[in-house]
Formats: sequence, structure tokens, C-alpha cells
Amino acid sequence: MNKPERIDTATEGAMLAIGRRAREAAHALALATPEAKTKALRAAAKALREATPQILAANTKDIEAARTAGRPAAFIDRLLLNGARIAAMATGVEEIAELPDPVGTVLAEWSRPNGLKFQRVRVPLGVIGIIYESRPNVTADAGALAVKAGNAAILRAGSESLNSSLAIHAAMASGLKSAGLPEAAIQLVPIADRAAVGHMLAGLDGSIDVIVPRGGKSLVERVQKEARVPVFAHLEGLCHTYVDKDADLGMAVEVVLNAKMRRTGVCGATETLLVDKAAPAAVLPALVKALLDDGCEVRGDAATQKADARVKPAADTDWTTEYLDAIISVKTVDGVAGAIAHIAGHSTQHTDAIITANTATAERFMREVDSAIVLHNASTQFADGGEFGFGGEIGIATGKLHARGPVGVEQLTSFKYVVRGDGQIRPK
Amino acid sequence: MNKPERIDTATEGAMLAIGRRAREAAHALALATPEAKTKALRAAAKALREATPQILAANTKDIEAARTAGRPAAFIDRLLLNGARIAAMATGVEEIAELPDPVGTVLAEWSRPNGLKFQRVRVPLGVIGIIYESRPNVTADAGALAVKAGNAAILRAGSESLNSSLAIHAAMASGLKSAGLPEAAIQLVPIADRAAVGHMLAGLDGSIDVIVPRGGKSLVERVQKEARVPVFAHLEGLCHTYVDKDADLGMAVEVVLNAKMRRTGVCGATETLLVDKAAPAAVLPALVKALLDDGCEVRGDAATQKADARVKPAADTDWTTEYLDAIISVKTVDGVAGAIAHIAGHSTQHTDAIITANTATAERFMREVDSAIVLHNASTQFADGGEFGFGGEIGIATGKLHARGPVGVEQLTSFKYVVRGDGQIRPK
Repeated sequence: MNKPERIDTATEGAMLAIGRRAREAAHALALATPEAKTKALRAAAKALREATPQILAANTKDIEAARTAGRPAAFIDRLLLNGARIAAMATGVEEIAELPDPVGTVLAEWSRPNGLKFQRVRVPLGVIGIIYESRPNVTADAGALAVKAGNAAILRAGSESLNSSLAIHAAMASGLKSAGLPEAAIQLVPIADRAAVGHMLAGLDGSIDVIVPRGGKSLVERVQKEARVPVFAHLEGLCHTYVDKDADLGMAVEVVLNAKMRRTGVCGATETLLVDKAAPAAVLPALVKALLDDGCEVRGDAATQKADARVKPAADTDWTTEYLDAIISVKTVDGVAGAIAHIAGHSTQHTDAIITANTATAERFMREVDSAIVLHNASTQFADGGEFGFGGEIGIATGKLHARGPVGVEQLTSFKYVVRGDGQIRPK
Repeated sequence: MNKPERIDTATEGAMLAIGRRAREAAHALALATPEAKTKALRAAAKALREATPQILAANTKDIEAARTAGRPAAFIDRLLLNGARIAAMATGVEEIAELPDPVGTVLAEWSRPNGLKFQRVRVPLGVIGIIYESRPNVTADAGALAVKAGNAAILRAGSESLNSSLAIHAAMASGLKSAGLPEAAIQLVPIADRAAVGHMLAGLDGSIDVIVPRGGKSLVERVQKEARVPVFAHLEGLCHTYVDKDADLGMAVEVVLNAKMRRTGVCGATETLLVDKAAPAAVLPALVKALLDDGCEVRGDAATQKADARVKPAADTDWTTEYLDAIISVKTVDGVAGAIAHIAGHSTQHTDAIITANTATAERFMREVDSAIVLHNASTQFADGGEFGFGGEIGIATGKLHARGPVGVEQLTSFKYVVRGDGQIRPK
């Protein structure tokens, strides 16, 4: 790893103290009653609403600084809060408050011939470190999800959203306090110094159990490269939609348009459309026309270029680019096998969909495509914890260990084995 | 990480080729039928039995080299194979063959108001790297568990068991071949060079999904320090048994003796006995006497030293030492709260037990002790995948992510979300 610079002893000391407080708070949270956690989050939501003027004032400072620094419009928009956004944040926290408490759930239960009774019981993970960019709402979401699952959170907000995040954090902490839970269950790193991130990635002397990066590619890459603790990483969402020869054309057009264009900046947006070479001749032109007419740039292979004069030629890099924009790459493939092979070679194992009326073809696709989420006849934009019914998410994990897909309350837990006996000893 | 020396380009090239073959084999294994996997493992077991003479001849070479190198008796014993041990290895592989196939199991199923149907389905993890010391039987166990779960395994055996492991590996590979599965589903690194381990820890260019170290503290520490891929680590098993004031004395003596003395070298052996200060006066002397009479050295606090003249004084380090020997540390504590506090400060979160007739006390202990396995009225030596009914294990994970406790076939899998729709698009 790249060791954090040893020169910043003040930052290091402050970060280690944050780690110790988090560890203690996690111990208390693990034993907190469901009622206390619900009460804390309801109170936090109320405090968020009541603190709207203070949060807006703090946000104005961040926005002014970002404008002065010449930040692009998309950045400013992510950073910007208003009354409606704060109200939505409070509602989000309330929704998390009302989720079933995951802690203590019996996940499995069995007994053995010697009479021992086994249970696998859900327990909190411990301390979750969340490192995010300048989206102040994550301070509320991520903190609430961590607490609901009985964990302590150490939040490291993008430095340019620090004023906004501090104001939001104050409301969250007051909610915890009013329910008698330790305020340190949600800590916000108050230090803009980037060395703070390095200390978190080193684990704060064993105090952090898992790191969740939430942000762009460069943040996630830094976290994966440097982290000495486990990471729930969200790599790119290079999502594919494959339109099979047996697809209903009307459905295909509607789903592909939604998958690409509903929101182009989300990780579940389709970036590559694969079309079966055996599909009726009308299919490819109809799909391409619908996209082009909706304002999407289309970069296609030779067959796609023939389908519409507006199609631009695709370069090799187009099959590996997450545009997050109104651009799509389109390729014709040899049936479902060709689609599966293309996805195996190019996908980021996030979300991939097939459109077909042929169930056997769909089942083959969903079995053979090794992605966190595989869909049949539905838009890839459903790749979202809320749409799964998870009541919020802290991100979408593209790794295969522990959490895969949307990271909600359940994914922020672990388990233990509880074994009940009546004096059993193990034979020699 | 400590980068592997760039000078060993031959080793590096060979290791990267192993990684590529494993990745390809994993793809085939993920889609293999349950029948093919079962057939392969049955054939591997048969081949192991038939290859007994060759395996013994190879083992003789390893044993002679180890004797020449002056290795201690315990090392030689772990390395030694004989007819009975090879037969047991074959039986172990057969037991794994007959386990239910985990791949494709539907772990959860629900639908949403928009009609989307969700399933969480078990899938293989991919490529498992297993790094172990000179216990040749791991070559058969670990390979069989990985294959049963649909994974490819890259095995790196202790260099002093390489001849034995190569002979065992040949039998496993022939089993795979006879069932039409790729032989590269179980690869044994044929290189004694320790740099091979460094390459595995770096992930072989993205080819390894998880590393399982199986061996002593120094191996596990090296793996945790250097690994750039996730690790299922098994730290020490500093297991505690707490005898509460409400314990049945006869049961307590029998369970504590078993927990410490059945086998002293296993990770589930109790290393520290905690005794309630409020227990009847006869309890502490009876426990200590039973241990001493069975040949166990007892290192105790002041109260324990008073209980029997043979007790030696415990030093601070005794509360943090995994003896793996006929030695136990004994401390008196203030009830279950004192036991929980001592365990929180000293445990490795492996396995801890309470002996009491009081159910409320037991439930509190099992709720508050944050260990992979907590037991009531049973020996800590049950910390074993076989005893859990997992049909074998690749180790006991002491981390809280993905696998916690015994790592069996199920713990070597991941999952995906399969979503079935009929044209659903996500509203704006």
C-alpha cells in the first residue's frame, strides 16, 4: 500500500480517535433494541427537516466555493441542496427507519444427531467506512443504513461538500442522542485533508471492518488499490441489453429506450445494445431509429451503420466505455451465444438484460451471464436497491464476495453461529 | 504490498498461465451439471485409492527430506501419509461428492408491485487460491470442495510436501478428466519457489477471486499483509469456556476437559477458562484438579492459584496466547458480564462457550459475545465444518465478511439476482 505520509501526525491522531469512538459505538449499536434504532432515525429525519435553514446556509457556502473554483454544472447540481431535496433526504431516512430490523434474524436452523441445535443468526458487521464524493445526501442515507443494521459509520464526504455534510451530520447525531444511542454511531470526518482517506484505507488500527467507496472511477480505483481492509467496490456499470430474434419488437424498443435514456448518468444505464443477427430485418433499424430520434448518439458496427445513416462507426474502445451519457454502442451478434460471449469479454458484471419471448433462451442467458443482476424483458435501470425493495442502498457492489448487487441494510450485516447443547462433548 | 521480485520472470509467466487456465476452467465448472461434478469427485476418490503406492512413494521422498532437514516430529507427523490416511482422504472426497449441489439454489424469492419477479440464486465464486503448509491431504479436500461448489482451485502446497501433493493432484485431475471436466479445475502450483505465493497474493492479473490461507500464524499474517485480493482468513483460535455460577458441576468438568484436552492442537481447543467468582467454592478446585490430573498445565490468577498448589501464576501474555498445547489459563470473573468483557478484550472472535443451567444467562452470553461460533453447554471443539454438518471445510474464517466460521461448500459460492419481467420499464 501507499503508506499515509507520516508527517501528518495531527490528522493521524484525530483519525485514530475517530476509529476508537466508532468501535465503542459499534459495540453499543450491536446491542441496541430495534425500537431505539427506529426512534433515532425518526428523530434524525425530524431534525433534518427542522435544520433546513442551517443546511441550506451551509450548502450555499459550498456552492459558492465550487462556482469560484469553476466546477462544471453537473458537479454543482450534485452538490446543490434545496428544500425539496432536504425533504426527500428526510423521507429517505424515515423509510430506512421503518424497514424490518435485520439484526437477530435466524437465517438457518438445524440440529445434529448428537442433539446440538445450530442457528445462523444475523449480526451487525461493525464499523463501516464510507468514502464519497460531493453528494451531501449520502451523509444521511449511508449513516441511516449503517445504523439500521446496527453498525457504526465513519463518513468521509467530498471536501467540497464538507459544510453541507457537517450540517446534515449534526441533525443525524441529534437523532441518535435523542434515542439514547451514542452520537459516535455516525461520525463525519471533519478534516478536509486527503490524508484522512489514506488513514481510513489503512483501517484505523483495526477499527474499520469494511470500506464502501461511493463515487467515480478514480475514487473507486484508489480505494481498491490502497485499502488494507475489505472493500465493497462498485466498479463501472457497463450494462448490456441483448435483443434476441424472438423478441417482441414493441417491447424491445420501449425497454431499450428506457434502459438507455431514462437517466443516462446512472450505473444501471445500458451502454451497449446487442442485436441478434437472426432477428427480422425490421428490428435493428427500428431500435436504432428510436434511440436516434430520442437524441441518443449511436455508434455501431457495420450492420448497424447500414441500418440508419445517422449511425457513427464504433471503435474498439466503444465496447468498453461506460458513457454515462446519451451515447450507445450497438453490435450485431450470433444469437444468444454471441451475446453471452460478448458480455463475458466486456461486461463489468453489473447488470445485463435479454429481451426475448423465448423462455429457454432467456433462462440460458440468465444462467450463463455472470453478472450481479440479470434481467429478462425488463430495463437495466431497475438496478437499484429501492427497485429491489431493499428500501435504499449504499451502492451496487460488482464484486462477488459478501455483497453483490445493491448494498442495502441486509448486506451491511454478518452472522454468527449460535449452538445450543446439553453437555455435548466431541468424541476423540 | 511487497511486489514480487521482478527478476523471476519464469515464475511469473508460469503463474500467470496458471491463472488464465483457472479462469477458463472456472467458466466451464460454473456451467457443469451436478452429475458431472459428482462423477468427477467419485472418480477422483477411486483414483486416489488406486494410486496409493505412487502416493506413498512420493511421500517417502518428502519425509526423508524433512528428516534430513531436521524438522520436528509434529511437522513430520502432519506430512506423513500411510494407507489409512490415503483411504480417509478418498472417503473425504466421496463425502464431498455426495453433498447437495449448492449451485442454482434459490436463496430468496419475491416480487414487486410492478410485476417484476426477483430471485437470489447461488452461483460459484470463480477461482479460489488456497495456500497451505505441508499437509498433503489439503490437496484432496480443498480441491474437492472448490469443485463441488463449481469453482476452479489453484493450490499452493507447502514446498516440503510437493512430491506428495503432486501425486495426490494427479489422481484428482484424472477424476476430473474422466467426467469430461477440465483438468485445470484443480491446479497444483508445481513450483517450489516462494515467489509463486507472492504472485498468487497479487491475484494473477485478476484471475483469483479469493485466497484461503490454511496454516500457522506466520502464513496467515503474510497473506493478510500482502494480498491484493480478498482473503478468508483464519486467525488464531483463542477460544474461551466460561463456567457460570449456575453451571452443573459434572457437566462443566466434562465439557471443559474435552474443550481443552480432546485435541490440544486444533483451533477450537479452549485456551482460557473463565470461572464465575460467584460459583460455589467447590467449582474452581474441581475444574482445576480435573485438568491437572489429565496432564494439563494450569496458569491461573490469584484465586486459581489458591485452588490447587500445582497451579502456576499466569502472566498478562497468558490471556492472549493460543497455546495449541496441554496448557490452559484460568481466570475468575464477575459473572457473565465479566466473562463477556474479558472475551471482548482478548478473543479472536473464533469460538467461545458458556456452561450454565440458566437459559437467560446463556442467551445473554451468546448475544453479546461477538464470535463466529458461540456455544451453550457444549465443547468448543465442535468448531469444525464436519461437526456442523457441512461435510468438510477448508478452514474456519474469523473475519466477518462473506464467510464466517467453517468454510464449506456453501461459503465457496456467491449469488446473483435473476429478475423476470414482461416488458417493465422504470418510470422517470
